[in-house]
Amino acid sequence: MNQLFSSKLLENVVGEFSKLPGIGKKTALRMALHLLKQDEESVKQFGQAVIQLRSEVMYCRECNNLSDTELCEICSNTHRDHSIVCVVETVRDVMSIENTMQYQGVYHVLGGVISPMDGIGPADLTIELLEKRISDGTVSEIILALSTTMEGDTTNFYIYRKVKHFPVTISTLARGLSIGDELEYADQVTLGRSIVNRMPFESTFKQN
Amino acid sequence: MNQLFSSKLLENVVGEFSKLPGIGKKTALRMALHLLKQDEESVKQFGQAVIQLRSEVMYCRECNNLSDTELCEICSNTHRDHSIVCVVETVRDVMSIENTMQYQGVYHVLGGVISPMDGIGPADLTIELLEKRISDGTVSEIILALSTTMEGDTTNFYIYRKVKHFPVTISTLARGLSIGDELEYADQVTLGRSIVNRMPFESTFKQN
Repeated sequence: MNQLFSSKLLENVVGEFSKLPGIGKKTALRMALHLLKQDEESVKQFGQAVIQLRSEVMYCRECNNLSDTELCEICSNTHRDHSIVCVVETVRDVMSIENTMQYQGVYHVLGGVISPMDGIGPADLTIELLEKRISDGTVSEIILALSTTMEGDTTNFYIYRKVKHFPVTISTLARGLSIGDELEYADQVTLGRSIVNRMPFESTFKQN
Repeated sequence: MNQLFSSKLLENVVGEFSKLPGIGKKTALRMALHLLKQDEESVKQFGQAVIQLRSEVMYCRECNNLSDTELCEICSNTHRDHSIVCVVETVRDVMSIENTMQYQGVYHVLGGVISPMDGIGPADLTIELLEKRISDGTVSEIILALSTTMEGDTTNFYIYRKVKHFPVTISTLARGLSIGDELEYADQVTLGRSIVNRMPFESTFKQN
């Protein structure tokens, strides 16, 4: 759809919005017209929040998580167990795990997974930083919490090879049926592994 | 989903994005993280375009269309027929009609339709401005191009009563089957009216 804009200013904003992931021209226009209906102060706030985020946000020097300070809230929290490091792909994954309220350790954000197809090699990730953290000797366990995809598995194995000579336990997220899954609809691979890696029934009691 | 943000700046932006229509927390987060991956200059452009739009855009003093200048591009175009005024609800409708490339007249943007349920009365629309335009004597036809809903029909009738004493032709968009419609799936009302208001077969020839 080749829109004919009566306002260059509007056209600009629609152009900017439609660069966002999953936003087409029509939605972008809807957003721009929505903003026009808001009062000037709140639109200013919107624009400034965006600019400020990009210019002021930092990456935690310890775990590479997004942070407003040099050391993120999680890494600077002394109540958390700094000897357990959960290795994740993105900031979003940190949020997902934090939301479960089941984890009290710290994180390490890789920034992605090794994916030759997308031109992402080990050097593009923060694997070196992770090695350095482990070599300090304060880490006793790392939990590999990457996607269960080919790329995730590759990255898991790469990290495993890099850190296996350190005295750390290397674990990974439990794999099996999702809570609420029906056997009939579970995929073959997941179901097959769930049988091979079956676990003591009593261990299900401790889950909330 | 109650997200736990490691960065207040990020939380702000996600909050702002999720105020936009049709954007939930998850999409807002995806957008914010996307912006973080862009270079600082283009994010600044994004933010400023939004602020500028709200603070600088004007409404055409003639037709109430969005414009960068006091008189919009369409109203200031001397090649257009200023004696025909197409009355529409929103700026978006102007774009839709412009996109058809079938209209050479000018517009009048009402800013909505009369809708007591939403607390919108005639005074909230630019009907008075329209009357003033017509009373100037330069307008020979107005085309009512509002939604074919109850509210649209009410507004049409309200305008009709307001302007019928002026020497102007009052027309409305043709109603009938959409191009590409199959009779089997057309709704009863549309089909019924299409029979009652059947038109000379020759008149279909002139359409492109």
